[in-house]
Amino acid sequence: MKLVTTHATEIAAAVRAGQARAHALVTAALEAISARDPALNCFTAVLADRALAEAAQVDAAVAAGRDPGPLAGVPFAVKNLFDVAGLSTLAGSRINREHPPARRDAAAVRRLGNAGAILLGALNMDEYACGFTTENSHYGPTRNPHDPSRVAGGSSGGSAAAVAAGLVPLALGSDTNGSIRVPAALCGVFGLKPTYGRISRAGTVLFSPSLDHVGPLARSVADLALAFDVLHGPDPADPVARPRPPEPCLPRLTEGMDGLRIAVADGHFRRGGDPEALEAVGRAATALGVRRGIEVPQVEVAEAAATIITLAEAGNVHLRNLRARARDFDPLTRDRLLAGALLPASAYLQAQRFRGWYRARLRAVFDEVDVLLTPTTPCVAPLVGTARMVVGGTEVAIRGHIGTYTRAFSFVGLPCVTVPVRDLAALPLGVQLVAAPYREADLLRVAAALEAQGFTAEPVLA
Amino acid sequence: MKLVTTHATEIAAAVRAGQARAHALVTAALEAISARDPALNCFTAVLADRALAEAAQVDAAVAAGRDPGPLAGVPFAVKNLFDVAGLSTLAGSRINREHPPARRDAAAVRRLGNAGAILLGALNMDEYACGFTTENSHYGPTRNPHDPSRVAGGSSGGSAAAVAAGLVPLALGSDTNGSIRVPAALCGVFGLKPTYGRISRAGTVLFSPSLDHVGPLARSVADLALAFDVLHGPDPADPVARPRPPEPCLPRLTEGMDGLRIAVADGHFRRGGDPEALEAVGRAATALGVRRGIEVPQVEVAEAAATIITLAEAGNVHLRNLRARARDFDPLTRDRLLAGALLPASAYLQAQRFRGWYRARLRAVFDEVDVLLTPTTPCVAPLVGTARMVVGGTEVAIRGHIGTYTRAFSFVGLPCVTVPVRDLAALPLGVQLVAAPYREADLLRVAAALEAQGFTAEPVLA
Repeated sequence: MKLVTTHATEIAAAVRAGQARAHALVTAALEAISARDPALNCFTAVLADRALAEAAQVDAAVAAGRDPGPLAGVPFAVKNLFDVAGLSTLAGSRINREHPPARRDAAAVRRLGNAGAILLGALNMDEYACGFTTENSHYGPTRNPHDPSRVAGGSSGGSAAAVAAGLVPLALGSDTNGSIRVPAALCGVFGLKPTYGRISRAGTVLFSPSLDHVGPLARSVADLALAFDVLHGPDPADPVARPRPPEPCLPRLTEGMDGLRIAVADGHFRRGGDPEALEAVGRAATALGVRRGIEVPQVEVAEAAATIITLAEAGNVHLRNLRARARDFDPLTRDRLLAGALLPASAYLQAQRFRGWYRARLRAVFDEVDVLLTPTTPCVAPLVGTARMVVGGTEVAIRGHIGTYTRAFSFVGLPCVTVPVRDLAALPLGVQLVAAPYREADLLRVAAALEAQGFTAEPVLA
Repeated sequence: MKLVTTHATEIAAAVRAGQARAHALVTAALEAISARDPALNCFTAVLADRALAEAAQVDAAVAAGRDPGPLAGVPFAVKNLFDVAGLSTLAGSRINREHPPARRDAAAVRRLGNAGAILLGALNMDEYACGFTTENSHYGPTRNPHDPSRVAGGSSGGSAAAVAAGLVPLALGSDTNGSIRVPAALCGVFGLKPTYGRISRAGTVLFSPSLDHVGPLARSVADLALAFDVLHGPDPADPVARPRPPEPCLPRLTEGMDGLRIAVADGHFRRGGDPEALEAVGRAATALGVRRGIEVPQVEVAEAAATIITLAEAGNVHLRNLRARARDFDPLTRDRLLAGALLPASAYLQAQRFRGWYRARLRAVFDEVDVLLTPTTPCVAPLVGTARMVVGGTEVAIRGHIGTYTRAFSFVGLPCVTVPVRDLAALPLGVQLVAAPYREADLLRVAAALEAQGFTAEPVLA
């Protein structure tokens, strides 16, 4: 079993059946990280001892006839804003390096661990999740496995690159305005940003609490579903993770797309991107037999309001450090957070008011269709060090523009999946699928249909 | 049946039984308003034609053997921030005089009307509900029926004074930081501020949306319960008025206080008031046989946070007029709203964060007790024109200080009732009862027990 090309579902099946040993898998993964991560810079911490000990436990359980769980022996790693017992939770910042080590794992990490998955380490990210490239990480930028001169995207850049390079089959990220979807697309893997409140954020460093989501990245749709089924559910420790009936997705992937109304998003989502990024949607639509288009209204206003809410909440989260430790922030991050801290409350409240209206307005779109198809990013991964570039014929500040197709949906908490599109450009692109709240299963069914038609995540071999 | 001294429950019973005619009651009420309101300035609009027509319908229904409803023939009036079909909704402001007339009644007005009550008119209030005295109303201050040189309190001052004077047995007010409870106490009547979201605010002019409540004022506990039972319930037109099982209170008033744990609030609620105001609580506690005290924590912080949230939200609500019509505001109101509009979002978010913590903290208090007893105001009604005065031995700005016992509870949406206390001072005072969310019935049971022991609202005769 060659780890780099094997999916989590396959690993778990083999380990549960006694056909593969977790200890061997973890050893192989640790070797791959040692060999390849120096060039990629995905990991900020590798937990060899812990991982090997846990792997031994999994193997012992199997040997004793006990089932270690649906993720038995699956190596995974997490964006370094998740608490990991014994590590300082860096969140991409040098300030947090001084924090005491976390006493216990974050809720989402515990859920995966309880299902038999094995944590290998913590992954690089943009400083405090503020960015789309990891270039402001105090631990250096993560490189794109498809072309190390290019960024992996962000803020969950380490998560996407580690999965794309085959160092782990599964990683956790977080997404406020696109921070799972953008790096997943730029690295050519699958990513799921669930409905707001679906997965507990307890034990994570929040960026903008009313917008922050946790979700998995993987190289197959079944792996996303497997992880999501373990991860989702209420948690009293995160008040926004409210009780809902469990809604397992993995068994539904075989249902196909019957009965699902799918449409391509018009207007904003057909503008502002490079031809290949727009064509990615056309190719997915053709594969799915989708001809219908539907207008998503007021996306630019939603983007502006999302920016206001993000900066105001993030400015507030970081208020103390902005006063006491201003020099320790990346200058661009600091200026944005400071602007957020100084935004008038009326701007914040107007943005929140618009958000209520927009939520209802998009509900009306999803009365018409079940799944919406858009590009995930307007371009392929930029070169490291790019501040501005020409996208779709116009010069843009890449830092903001790269989230132009993702921001409006996280703004109102809708679930989204990004599906990789290969061979359209020199580097991967993505198509984004969007559904009504709690309809993750519909998204994953459509993603599986695309995957079956060649929209796959091919790992980058060493 | 002498309207001025008759309760809504008595009127409705008599009208339903055919022993009194709504038309005669309404005629008497209109005459009383004509004779006495010029000195009190409760009403900003009197709807004689509408009221007489509706009264005739009620009488016709009774004559035809149909039941007009539990409030059959009960005259009532509403704070002029409730929409009334055909009237501009003034909200105490000259700016709103230019607004087109409302097309339909506010949701709460419709509920009372559908239950057979008859709307007589609209009542004076502080400009945009910002204040506790009605002195910034562009329609002049409302006078206290117990002493016309004194304010009626606010912002629902017209509502409290009209009920105290016996012009109507029932009125609607609204309460953001104490705006039902303060005027009810200062005018010597009962007032109920229900749990946040219990009564729809659709069709009202909001002041601070996350703090605004609608509720009734009356001269008996049974009347409060009768009105509340009709008023409460979900309304899709007010997203915060969420579905709950109906919880009628009127049938429960006979239960007495058995099983209810009652305590006097210590700390903040024993300081900062005139001796009579503090003694009002002692008298109520004696009447109820309550000896226990309990500390309510961090009231001053809650007051500060409530003020920040109120001003930020109100500043945002009035942003357009602050830009375009600044001179048309009362100068003190304008300065407060402007300060609110300019508050940093971080201050607002810190206050909201504290609010979440405080809600949980007060939940712990109500794990210990069912009903809390506090003063409603720190002093009797001030003279009209008083900006500062000595209360509890300290000079205070009366505008803010008069809400010092009410603000912390509306901040976290808890239901409160104020019960009048007579004969302790030259003017009425009040005791406030507070309970856990949705426990209005417990409050009304305790209020009824006090009423039975002489804590009654005696109308001020002409």
